[in-house]
Amino acid sequence: MKLRTNLTVIMSAVIMALTVTAANAAAPKYVFFFLGDGMSASQVQATEAYLTTKNGYSATKAADLLLPQNRLNMSKMPVQGMQTTYDSFALMTDSASAGTAFACGTKTQSGVIGMDSTKTISYKSIAQLAKEKGKKVGIVTSVSLDHATPASYYASVTSRSLMNNIATQLANTGYEFFGGGGLVKPTGASAPDTNNNIWNLLSANGYLVKNDRTSILDLKNNPRDKVVAINPSLQDSAAMPYAIDLDMPGYENNLSLAEMTDVAVKVLSGNGGFQKGFFLMVEGGKIDWAAHANDAMAVMGDMLDFDNAVKVALDFYAMHPCDTLIVVTGDHETGGMTIGHATTGYTAYYDRLLGQKNSFQYFGTTYWPAHKANWMAATCGNWTQPDNLANNSDMINLLASEFGLTWSDLNEYQKLQLEDAYDKSLCGQNSNSTAKNTLLYGTYEPIIVTITHILNERASIGWTSYSHTGVPVPVFAKGDGARAFNGFYDNTDIAKKLGAVMGIHKYLPVVK
Amino acid sequence: MKLRTNLTVIMSAVIMALTVTAANAAAPKYVFFFLGDGMSASQVQATEAYLTTKNGYSATKAADLLLPQNRLNMSKMPVQGMQTTYDSFALMTDSASAGTAFACGTKTQSGVIGMDSTKTISYKSIAQLAKEKGKKVGIVTSVSLDHATPASYYASVTSRSLMNNIATQLANTGYEFFGGGGLVKPTGASAPDTNNNIWNLLSANGYLVKNDRTSILDLKNNPRDKVVAINPSLQDSAAMPYAIDLDMPGYENNLSLAEMTDVAVKVLSGNGGFQKGFFLMVEGGKIDWAAHANDAMAVMGDMLDFDNAVKVALDFYAMHPCDTLIVVTGDHETGGMTIGHATTGYTAYYDRLLGQKNSFQYFGTTYWPAHKANWMAATCGNWTQPDNLANNSDMINLLASEFGLTWSDLNEYQKLQLEDAYDKSLCGQNSNSTAKNTLLYGTYEPIIVTITHILNERASIGWTSYSHTGVPVPVFAKGDGARAFNGFYDNTDIAKKLGAVMGIHKYLPVVK
Repeated sequence: MKLRTNLTVIMSAVIMALTVTAANAAAPKYVFFFLGDGMSASQVQATEAYLTTKNGYSATKAADLLLPQNRLNMSKMPVQGMQTTYDSFALMTDSASAGTAFACGTKTQSGVIGMDSTKTISYKSIAQLAKEKGKKVGIVTSVSLDHATPASYYASVTSRSLMNNIATQLANTGYEFFGGGGLVKPTGASAPDTNNNIWNLLSANGYLVKNDRTSILDLKNNPRDKVVAINPSLQDSAAMPYAIDLDMPGYENNLSLAEMTDVAVKVLSGNGGFQKGFFLMVEGGKIDWAAHANDAMAVMGDMLDFDNAVKVALDFYAMHPCDTLIVVTGDHETGGMTIGHATTGYTAYYDRLLGQKNSFQYFGTTYWPAHKANWMAATCGNWTQPDNLANNSDMINLLASEFGLTWSDLNEYQKLQLEDAYDKSLCGQNSNSTAKNTLLYGTYEPIIVTITHILNERASIGWTSYSHTGVPVPVFAKGDGARAFNGFYDNTDIAKKLGAVMGIHKYLPVVK
Repeated sequence: MKLRTNLTVIMSAVIMALTVTAANAAAPKYVFFFLGDGMSASQVQATEAYLTTKNGYSATKAADLLLPQNRLNMSKMPVQGMQTTYDSFALMTDSASAGTAFACGTKTQSGVIGMDSTKTISYKSIAQLAKEKGKKVGIVTSVSLDHATPASYYASVTSRSLMNNIATQLANTGYEFFGGGGLVKPTGASAPDTNNNIWNLLSANGYLVKNDRTSILDLKNNPRDKVVAINPSLQDSAAMPYAIDLDMPGYENNLSLAEMTDVAVKVLSGNGGFQKGFFLMVEGGKIDWAAHANDAMAVMGDMLDFDNAVKVALDFYAMHPCDTLIVVTGDHETGGMTIGHATTGYTAYYDRLLGQKNSFQYFGTTYWPAHKANWMAATCGNWTQPDNLANNSDMINLLASEFGLTWSDLNEYQKLQLEDAYDKSLCGQNSNSTAKNTLLYGTYEPIIVTITHILNERASIGWTSYSHTGVPVPVFAKGDGARAFNGFYDNTDIAKKLGAVMGIHKYLPVVK
């Protein structure tokens, strides 16, 4: 064996020894875990192309796409890994089993939270273990606080639908901060769910519930432990509004996910938090919901808000670089989103997206029902097929004003698809087979999902599903211990790596 | 600042210093670069799910999917990174600009090889630089040797279509080994291309062309420098047959990509190669072609062959672990392949794929033209629309025998899609708009691409495009210097990292 080779072997051993020593000596005190629900490499790349366009550059030029200001904070982190996401019995995981994997370190079946796949053993999450070790804990999400991903950090239940039970466990955590959306079943659940009044329980356990912008923001200057900060105006299923809807009437006084994260950091680092250290989980939960609905603009709006929340952590890191670890990942991909489409080939047109004003959800609860009511009144509900969308100036105007879609820009097939979907949404009828309707619309309002499909494909974004998909998702990390997140590994390894790096438990999962 | 923090900083500095020293001391002597054309995380995950099923396990169970024998060699490598793939003027790169990026370290425009985006400056590839430093060089590909990806390692041309010019440059490289497919324009090119007889040129330059299995395999025992090993029976555009077609009549005497890689290793390590070291580029080029055609089984067949070629390198690594570097990546994703589909939701059925016997290409050049000729003869070309596919026992039997598709298993819309496509393929007519036909079939034979679409979606694999897409692709690495390939970076960084790690050039690109 040559001298050079010997030297390499010796060097490697020395480096390994030093690395282990260094890792043991320096468990990060402040740990941020960011979870983009439904976020894979496609969602990241689409958002960077959109951001490039939004910033006035071209999404079809490498020189523009590579500019730092057109990149997300997460993809600029020095460490990047990739995780497989399948669960015990599905190639396409759901958020409950995925959450259980990266929060508790165990595989389970879809729908189950904090338990094994036989639903008999309960496990502690990395947040619970951190709490036991004396760290402060915060949970922030853009969806409801009792939703599958946040629940994986504090609850063990046989079904994610037992949301009153989940909220009961939330109220008993003692975690210092919860923030974002509200609760789906704060009262009035029925068997097999529990039937507790969560508000009373929270109060009895010393929690203060805040739900106006001023008093939530006031926590930054006057941090207080045990707070539940709920945005004042929730949108769907007790979730925060989509980021692209935040400036609409009624939502102005909401906090963005980034603002809520900032509040969380101040609460967690206040009142002894700097000494104790903390674990903060932040979920961008509606990236997933928008992707289920195949609405790229709503996806990318929430991606940007989520990435701004990451920026809050990076600002904290800048002041505490030796003690802070930031990990960012997704739980699975949603929608089968792709950065290309058969109709556009090798060219992308992200500028075509800029005309969309709001999310499918906002349109579907404002403009569309108003339009439909007018139509019903005008026609007295008389169904004549096909209704001629092309001559319906009100709808044509809505397409232009709310989505930037001009009728004359569409090809014949896109026009036909809109006609079919419009008829289906108005009267539940069109000439498609049931199978075709299911494929084209899933469970969404036909006209709205068809609008986003066509808008997206014209930009060169494709979708194949209304569900989660099974592609591995990237992991980004920065800071103390970040190197552990390099490599290709399973989602359960994330909890295990966190446990080891944080020095809170050598081997996960840990039975409750 | 606390003692612990100081210790961390000092440790980091020591580790960094040692790492740099170690890297300088130990430039890998044997470097393998594997390029899966059109391969992203989706192609990797789909193939692992398929392999799991093929091995008799379940693709819907994490415990089965995680078994080592059901994983690809590449995804088990210790290092994993991710690269952005856009080129100078496109979010969706082509293989020429992508190849130029990771071979030469510079961005360029689509179609250009080994030159900058103004097509005025020519750059040296990592293979050329390795050759100049005295290393032996080999190029293996499943497509033609003058195709864009392999050409990026030896040629500089303004357009990838100038294939006689490219082949001329190939013949002048002095590289020790070329193997795989043949040449598209070995003679007879016309302006602006050159018009050289490449066979004569190769001979004049001391190359021996071998194109039978026995004499190519004989190189393993009797290695010889300057060989061009071309498979005896090529399929389409001078490319090797799809791996799933390899056992069909006429192809039995071909070498697989893995076998050709094995030959390359023996040639490169023979005749002083162990002392000189080598750089071997291996391309799985038809992963891309199959993905363009949206044929998942052909994709996964070539993925497995490609991964078996990686295994050849791993076997070499096992004997020379301190001197070998293996890097595996893709140039871009193709087809917008997704691990999920609207029709199957959260469930995958990879067993439904097992009935497909051959590639779309093989079917399209054998069974389909025979069937069509019979139909034309029987009907005298009289077109009566709609032709009733459901009653056409010959075609129904072909669906069953060649693809495992049973008519009665299909839903109404799938049947309608097949009817439309069948009519379009037989007589060029159906009731679709032109735009709809383009969306559904691209430039492919309507009936065949519709068969693979339906077969794939029934398994839960979706497609959105017939072109490349812009999602970042994973990088896998193992061995000496592999750690440099951790992280999220641009495709041009791959050439730069290789240049630095191999110690052949500090800063790429290098002007010719």
